[in-house]
Amino acid sequence: MKIAVLGTGDVGKMLGDRLLAGGHAVRMGSRTAGNEKAAAWAAAASGDASTGTFADAAAWADMVLLAVSGMAALDVVASAKEALAGKVVIDLTNPLDFSQGFPPRLSVCNDDSLGEQIQRAVPDARIVKTLNTLSNPLMLAPGQLEGPHDVLLCGNDPQAKSAVRELLVSFGWNDPIDLGDITNARGLEMWLPLWVRLFQALGTPMFNLHVQR
Amino acid sequence: MKIAVLGTGDVGKMLGDRLLAGGHAVRMGSRTAGNEKAAAWAAAASGDASTGTFADAAAWADMVLLAVSGMAALDVVASAKEALAGKVVIDLTNPLDFSQGFPPRLSVCNDDSLGEQIQRAVPDARIVKTLNTLSNPLMLAPGQLEGPHDVLLCGNDPQAKSAVRELLVSFGWNDPIDLGDITNARGLEMWLPLWVRLFQALGTPMFNLHVQR
Repeated sequence: MKIAVLGTGDVGKMLGDRLLAGGHAVRMGSRTAGNEKAAAWAAAASGDASTGTFADAAAWADMVLLAVSGMAALDVVASAKEALAGKVVIDLTNPLDFSQGFPPRLSVCNDDSLGEQIQRAVPDARIVKTLNTLSNPLMLAPGQLEGPHDVLLCGNDPQAKSAVRELLVSFGWNDPIDLGDITNARGLEMWLPLWVRLFQALGTPMFNLHVQR
Repeated sequence: MKIAVLGTGDVGKMLGDRLLAGGHAVRMGSRTAGNEKAAAWAAAASGDASTGTFADAAAWADMVLLAVSGMAALDVVASAKEALAGKVVIDLTNPLDFSQGFPPRLSVCNDDSLGEQIQRAVPDARIVKTLNTLSNPLMLAPGQLEGPHDVLLCGNDPQAKSAVRELLVSFGWNDPIDLGDITNARGLEMWLPLWVRLFQALGTPMFNLHVQR
């Protein structure tokens, strides 16, 4: 598949590498075409790696991973609104606001969510919220953590969710839990305050939620 | 131990029965001394079961379980403020507001929590937030769900947390996770929106969070 990774941070680079290793073509999108971090990533990567603007990458791709910071997410999707129309977009952002220090608060929660805001900002894109509940190294390599653990997803478009589920399963996720429509992004994002406190208490990000049932 | 259960609903009655079965003396507290539901529970219970007002029960007890609805919790602790001074209080409430329908929203979250509000309302009580993250039947009977799963706790008083941990372990919890001070109630309560959606998706409340690590 041709997969656009929007974002040149640690998450974007790590996911880009994993997707390349999985045999996908990856275009890393950034605000400007000549982004140095994206170029350095593509030069060092092995596989079909390329770079472009957010809109270039989205227009080229079969599937889009939104891997920017939560505070930037709405601007980024708005800048690629036309290119995102009809695309399956994996939203793995969290509305973490560090402006008042650590632990972060959420910039939106309870009656709305960043996932819903993103879906409203690009209504023709097919947003699937997933992977936001766990640390970067586990996102596309769940086997790095022994024992059963879960990934959850939600979104309004059943076909988009099927495509994302297939991608997740190909990277080792056993049985992604489909919560329903995009309003479930509220619950997925409101898990973060507990995740952050568990990260502090356990002293490692290498843990994940397992729904024991 | 002498344990007060404040609340005469399904949670209070179920926890009262479990505590009696565990060999504890239980006094069920309610708003008025002659509460019919409390009297019916005590009459049918086997073991050292009694009833009283919230303040009566709290004054008598070594440990107090706050098992009322989240919307009533602050009124209840305020009505027993003097009796609660110095007591270890297990807060298992959630700030679930059903006034706008289902799924409920939280009446407080993000920058504050019901656990913190309760601690501020009765500053001399030793609040330990725990058990609010899972369904009633599992609270004091974790063995009803096969496989590993977790209970978490937080609070400002280390001795109070030790006492609560000992009680939890006596009912079969393996290794309760101590998150830290009472501000961690934010994360524990913000798990509820996801719990509610999982409950809908799975069709059963008999599941729980396991922190895979």
